[in-house]
Amino acid sequence: MAHKYVYLFSEGDGSMRELLGGKGANLAEMSRLGMPVPSGFTVTTEACTRYYDDGKVIAADIEKEIYDNLAKIEEINGKRFADPKNPLLVSVRSGARASMPGMMDTILNLGMNDEVAAGLIAGNSDPKFARFVYDSYRRFIQMFSDVVMEISKKTFEVIIDELKAKKGVKNDIDLDVEDMKELVVRFKAYYKEQKGVDFPTDPKEQMMESVKAVFRSWDNPRANVYRRMNDIPYSWGTAVNVQPMVFGNLNDRSGTGVAFTRDPATGEKALFGEYLINAQGEDVVAGVRTPSKISHLQQDMPEVYNQFVEIANKLEAHYRDMQDMEFTIENGKLYMLQTRNGKRTAAAALKIAVDLVDEGMITEKEAVLRVEPKQLDSLLHPQFDAAALKAAEVIGTGLAASPGAACGKVVFTAEDAKEWAAKGEKVCLVRLETSPEDIEGMVAAEGILTVRGGMTSHAAVVARGMGTCCVSGCGEITMHADKKYFEIGGKQYHEGDYISLDGSTGKIYGQAVATAEATISGDFGRFMAWADAARGDFKVRTNADNPRDTAQAVKFGAEGIGLCRTEHMFFEGDRIKAIREMIVSKTADERKVALAKILPLQQGDFEAMYRVLEGRPMTVRFLDPPLHEFVPTKDDEIKELAAEMKIGVEELKNVIASLHESNPMMGHRGCRLAVTYPEIAAMQTTAVINAAITVNKEHPEYNIVPEIMIPLVGEIKELKYVKDTVVETADKIIADAGIDMHYKVGTMIEIPRAAITADEIAKEAEFFSFGTNDLTQMTFGFSRDDAGKFLDAYYETKIFESDPFAKLDQNGVGKLVQMAAKLGRQTRPDIKLGICGEHGGDPSSVEFCYNNGLNYVSCSPFRVPIARLAAAQAAIKAGK
Amino acid sequence: MAHKYVYLFSEGDGSMRELLGGKGANLAEMSRLGMPVPSGFTVTTEACTRYYDDGKVIAADIEKEIYDNLAKIEEINGKRFADPKNPLLVSVRSGARASMPGMMDTILNLGMNDEVAAGLIAGNSDPKFARFVYDSYRRFIQMFSDVVMEISKKTFEVIIDELKAKKGVKNDIDLDVEDMKELVVRFKAYYKEQKGVDFPTDPKEQMMESVKAVFRSWDNPRANVYRRMNDIPYSWGTAVNVQPMVFGNLNDRSGTGVAFTRDPATGEKALFGEYLINAQGEDVVAGVRTPSKISHLQQDMPEVYNQFVEIANKLEAHYRDMQDMEFTIENGKLYMLQTRNGKRTAAAALKIAVDLVDEGMITEKEAVLRVEPKQLDSLLHPQFDAAALKAAEVIGTGLAASPGAACGKVVFTAEDAKEWAAKGEKVCLVRLETSPEDIEGMVAAEGILTVRGGMTSHAAVVARGMGTCCVSGCGEITMHADKKYFEIGGKQYHEGDYISLDGSTGKIYGQAVATAEATISGDFGRFMAWADAARGDFKVRTNADNPRDTAQAVKFGAEGIGLCRTEHMFFEGDRIKAIREMIVSKTADERKVALAKILPLQQGDFEAMYRVLEGRPMTVRFLDPPLHEFVPTKDDEIKELAAEMKIGVEELKNVIASLHESNPMMGHRGCRLAVTYPEIAAMQTTAVINAAITVNKEHPEYNIVPEIMIPLVGEIKELKYVKDTVVETADKIIADAGIDMHYKVGTMIEIPRAAITADEIAKEAEFFSFGTNDLTQMTFGFSRDDAGKFLDAYYETKIFESDPFAKLDQNGVGKLVQMAAKLGRQTRPDIKLGICGEHGGDPSSVEFCYNNGLNYVSCSPFRVPIARLAAAQAAIKAGK
Repeated sequence: MAHKYVYLFSEGDGSMRELLGGKGANLAEMSRLGMPVPSGFTVTTEACTRYYDDGKVIAADIEKEIYDNLAKIEEINGKRFADPKNPLLVSVRSGARASMPGMMDTILNLGMNDEVAAGLIAGNSDPKFARFVYDSYRRFIQMFSDVVMEISKKTFEVIIDELKAKKGVKNDIDLDVEDMKELVVRFKAYYKEQKGVDFPTDPKEQMMESVKAVFRSWDNPRANVYRRMNDIPYSWGTAVNVQPMVFGNLNDRSGTGVAFTRDPATGEKALFGEYLINAQGEDVVAGVRTPSKISHLQQDMPEVYNQFVEIANKLEAHYRDMQDMEFTIENGKLYMLQTRNGKRTAAAALKIAVDLVDEGMITEKEAVLRVEPKQLDSLLHPQFDAAALKAAEVIGTGLAASPGAACGKVVFTAEDAKEWAAKGEKVCLVRLETSPEDIEGMVAAEGILTVRGGMTSHAAVVARGMGTCCVSGCGEITMHADKKYFEIGGKQYHEGDYISLDGSTGKIYGQAVATAEATISGDFGRFMAWADAARGDFKVRTNADNPRDTAQAVKFGAEGIGLCRTEHMFFEGDRIKAIREMIVSKTADERKVALAKILPLQQGDFEAMYRVLEGRPMTVRFLDPPLHEFVPTKDDEIKELAAEMKIGVEELKNVIASLHESNPMMGHRGCRLAVTYPEIAAMQTTAVINAAITVNKEHPEYNIVPEIMIPLVGEIKELKYVKDTVVETADKIIADAGIDMHYKVGTMIEIPRAAITADEIAKEAEFFSFGTNDLTQMTFGFSRDDAGKFLDAYYETKIFESDPFAKLDQNGVGKLVQMAAKLGRQTRPDIKLGICGEHGGDPSSVEFCYNNGLNYVSCSPFRVPIARLAAAQAAIKAGK
Repeated sequence: MAHKYVYLFSEGDGSMRELLGGKGANLAEMSRLGMPVPSGFTVTTEACTRYYDDGKVIAADIEKEIYDNLAKIEEINGKRFADPKNPLLVSVRSGARASMPGMMDTILNLGMNDEVAAGLIAGNSDPKFARFVYDSYRRFIQMFSDVVMEISKKTFEVIIDELKAKKGVKNDIDLDVEDMKELVVRFKAYYKEQKGVDFPTDPKEQMMESVKAVFRSWDNPRANVYRRMNDIPYSWGTAVNVQPMVFGNLNDRSGTGVAFTRDPATGEKALFGEYLINAQGEDVVAGVRTPSKISHLQQDMPEVYNQFVEIANKLEAHYRDMQDMEFTIENGKLYMLQTRNGKRTAAAALKIAVDLVDEGMITEKEAVLRVEPKQLDSLLHPQFDAAALKAAEVIGTGLAASPGAACGKVVFTAEDAKEWAAKGEKVCLVRLETSPEDIEGMVAAEGILTVRGGMTSHAAVVARGMGTCCVSGCGEITMHADKKYFEIGGKQYHEGDYISLDGSTGKIYGQAVATAEATISGDFGRFMAWADAARGDFKVRTNADNPRDTAQAVKFGAEGIGLCRTEHMFFEGDRIKAIREMIVSKTADERKVALAKILPLQQGDFEAMYRVLEGRPMTVRFLDPPLHEFVPTKDDEIKELAAEMKIGVEELKNVIASLHESNPMMGHRGCRLAVTYPEIAAMQTTAVINAAITVNKEHPEYNIVPEIMIPLVGEIKELKYVKDTVVETADKIIADAGIDMHYKVGTMIEIPRAAITADEIAKEAEFFSFGTNDLTQMTFGFSRDDAGKFLDAYYETKIFESDPFAKLDQNGVGKLVQMAAKLGRQTRPDIKLGICGEHGGDPSSVEFCYNNGLNYVSCSPFRVPIARLAAAQAAIKAGK
């Protein structure tokens, strides 16, 4: 039997998500559950993959299968394609395994042509119906031209505006049936002008082109960006759902809506949603008209409302999760067009997970799996400072579309948002309404403000998904985007002016408002306790170099410091001067004099850190960057420094020149510095050990065991050489102090050779910390600083689907991590293994670390709760 | 039983080289064979290792074992330490597994003190004997102070000079017994002044300090340099040989000498050597007096000569190789002090190997193992051009100490030789005599010229070992090294003046003399044929980018090109202009216009190469370096280029600035260029395929199968993307030409990730070529350009014992090569594997490649014969 590429809804079910996509599987499941779903079919994701494999062609066997299934749905629905008496009109929609709202294309009203339009009207005497038919027709031409033929939508809008101007009317609704007919004629003419051929009248041709267009849209730029952001592999492909049309815009007993079984912003248990009477789905999603609340439907159409509530409850109970549903009412009859687990804010995700546990629907472990770790981020970043907020002037209020606080400079286009953010500016993106093209700008913005659109508009849905603050539908604003300002309450806000947005209240402030820290309590606290219980022995530490960050991380649950970068301590105040003195030293003795000045400062740093840690462990990494990072490069700065150092300008220039490196990333840094200048390692050892002794004396209960980490080791003898200095120095101090103190010496695994020879290195190293930033650079052979030149091309060509510096490359770098972990344990079964690269806060990377038997991850303070949750999920998935 | 650290000669044999060192094992073997060897003992290499492990201390158990064995040799030799009536005096000498001539320390006449000296004299009435005793005594003080106590030898020479001046005599020999006595007194006084204690009189103390000194000398700087040059691991350690003294300086019926069973310079079968009457061994080796030829001994002491000839023949037959022997005659009695396989020139090595086969002593395979591959180098480099030589003026003649031709600027110190060579100057090192301290300067020099010393002087032995041309013992020269010139035949030659040296004739030319190419014929040809037979299927290719180098390599036996670097072709003449045009292009179309100018030139290059190769395969690597390498950096050059390109200076500067990279080694280069600019890959494909078609048409018998190599691949999709361009372009050309031509597309494995994911990459790559230069950089995480800053420290601290860019790091980089080879073969069992980094010409790396199943190595043309021999040796060692 030939491979099956097309499934009727009646042939599938909810478990077939990989093959049918999320939408297709859920439509099949709803059909199976006896819910009112227009009976269609799904072209599988495998057909999409094959389309690409075959060189962007739909093979004849698949084409035939589509036509065969079309015949079946004609049969089932009792309508026929292109039959003027009883025509079948269908929608063609994308549906990937993972929901990608708005990223791919949809075509409605497919099957329409002059004869079908005339036939439809012939069967219905209502003059409003004739207008509806031609309105649907012109919409189809517009959508097909845009999506399938890549003729810009805007030109069609211009044609409509011309007609409205000629007729002297303002709104689309004021155009009558004749006007709609004229639009159809004009649109077809414009199509011919653009394409050189007539608009296709054969519904089968329309169908096949539309399926191709959906497949093609899998590869459009915004879909690619969305996938990269959401870790969705390109190889998955999208399914295509073909479904008989039902018309929410048929008459006033018709409508369309979107609803959630719980509030996606707060998690509150109540049906939440919106609908528009006499409209098609796109009108709701696009946010063009502001819709009514779903509860209104109870008054408008009580029976439909009750049926919908019943279905909603059934679906939530069935999927054991909050559902996001699309429905259409055609002439008083309810149709379900989609259900899926609803996207939600982090706060809502937490509340829903906790509530479902309390309702007995799911277990605590299941609850832990229900929150995306990355989402927590939005709960962890500062909220507005209450005092500052009180003093701030509210200039307007919109819908509280996505919670959180944002403060930034006004920009009016996605491009500007991206550019300004790249320059380090915090921006708020202000738009009439957003569209999928804006995605990159939305990612770059601190907050999003729109004039139009409800809680389920594009801006709101996308912002909630990203955890970005959004205020939508603020109709008080008058936009002058072309002149780069907007007006509200009689005041103008120009590009670059500060505004602040509160996504939890919908309030807009005409100034920068200070923010205050987040806390973990209530549902969040309960939830994290479940996560920690699931996580078991696997630890989460933080990367911090100062007491402030350390305190923040401890508040977020950090169980120690996994990476304290000592060089950061060297840049402050007078220290840089002493470091520079050390650098210009000509002999080890001169260097020792300079280092002696740094010693008490560094020791003080460590003491402060140990006090904040209250007995939690701290891994101190010794000096890592090349020395040229500490010297100035500009002429006037060099002159100033020379005067300060009391040496000649030329002499200093020579020193600086001698530090120059062709490839500093691969230069004289890390433990290589300690090999050439062992006195630096000796000074740092003294600082760490002395600090531990001092703080242990103050608080014997801390029982500090210092952890000293030698960076950039590639060879066992290199580690041994530096370790010898550390041990000699430390043992002498401890002996002189007449105390008994343990300490550990370990290394970063960040050079490929260290991973490959980890069995050797473990003979000297008491712990490994994977420095996956450098390990990624060396393993791929490109530096982060330079990769920008070609990484965009790599994303475009799908050579890379994610940024290897953000998400651990498990196929390559990960293999080295696995190898090193295995080899290290062979030599030293109790070796402690951790990761301290930026990947330590990336959920998929945390899962990888967990699954490969690492003992901990270390990440930036704000990622600590994310890592705790990701580790818990990994443990649960691993059956722990 | 306790571990045994000391062996009497009678307890060992020749097979125990690892434990006893080469000298110790051979002394034991000679004893076993009944030859006259003073009966001593050997402290093992394990004792040395333990000395270092214990923190540079000789443990009590080893000390006791040494004393026990001392007692045994007292017994055997019927003499006692410190017994004035019958005192035992011993020599203490180093002896590592591999011979390291002159690199470590020796102490003679140990056991001497005032009582012993007096006792010795009391037993002998000859006044000359008394002088001899005090001469030996003062030598011992001098040597012990120097070697054991690190008091400079030179000060003692100053004391001698003072005494000679006071006495008004010129030579040491003119000092009488009272003078010698006074020297002993003065030396001891100087020792006390330096050390604050009396010179040790207890022979046991002298002994233990001397053993320690020998162990310590294993770690002296010149030994470390020598080991690094000769791949001798630091971990081996040295043994110490303690042997009763025999005195070549006792009287005129005494003497000492060094001899070879065959001529170490030419390989001629005849006893070859030198001796000095009334001298100690150090006098011969140091080259202070010019000795007599060994054949003279037949007249001087016919019986001793005959006995020596008999022993020499026995030893050669026993060891089945040319022997290098040291002997001493004491009062008419012959003693053998050492035998070892003699160091020899490459020409001698070849001749001896071939002769031994012809004499039926060894097999052809054994012969192949007898020549150090690296040695061949000296035979491959140019000899003097005959015509140029005829026209050149001979300014003097010395001994033909190490063959080959050298031409360079005169320098007078090892330091200068090293410095000048580092700046790219070719130098000839001119010295009164060389000493082990000069080793680095000797490595750096093209040739070595000494005023003093024979064929077995330090300069001669070391130069032959390195294959460096050396003319020694040219007494006609008057040195003014302090004034940086020498005089010969009334002419002055100053530092920086050119001279030329012929190490095969001993002639010195006062000018630069042109050189001519070497050829492989005669013994060399026969020998290489045996090597090739042993080598089997394993191929040797060359790295070449132009017809000249290709022709040279083919002459040296290259079986194809393993690496043709196309960028080298871009720098010549007008090409660089077209490349720059391409770089400043703003669009793909502009780039194509520029590339079209390069196409015919590049195609022409490939055609010329294919013609020279006559059907041998060629792997063409596509453009690799970052584009900024093609643009100027200096202001005036930029101005010139801007005018030429007809663009603004600022615009050009912006383009150049945009090409800047922080770490160019890890930047936008290799296949990354082809991903961003596929049109470059398309042009290069066109050039290769067109060239192959053209040359195939001229010579259908060549049947060229082009091999296209994509550099710097780290990910399968990256290779696939570029390969798609190559295949599309190539297939179209081949189809258009209406012919049937095969071609292969493969990749460099030079990024760690490529090695790790080689199973994936082999799905697209038809061959792998290991680019071990870059692979070494990435695996170690340091760039060759920058590593110089710390590599010296790494050698000093023994973290590295060899340069990983010269000798493949088998523990680290090698593991990646093994992994990639294994993974690649898993996916594609017939994948062709080769290496094209500089390691392809390094013998130990070639052996590694052979043992890991690679199909070929590729190296620079002059290393092709070396690689052929190294591969043959690897095959033989592997039992093939």
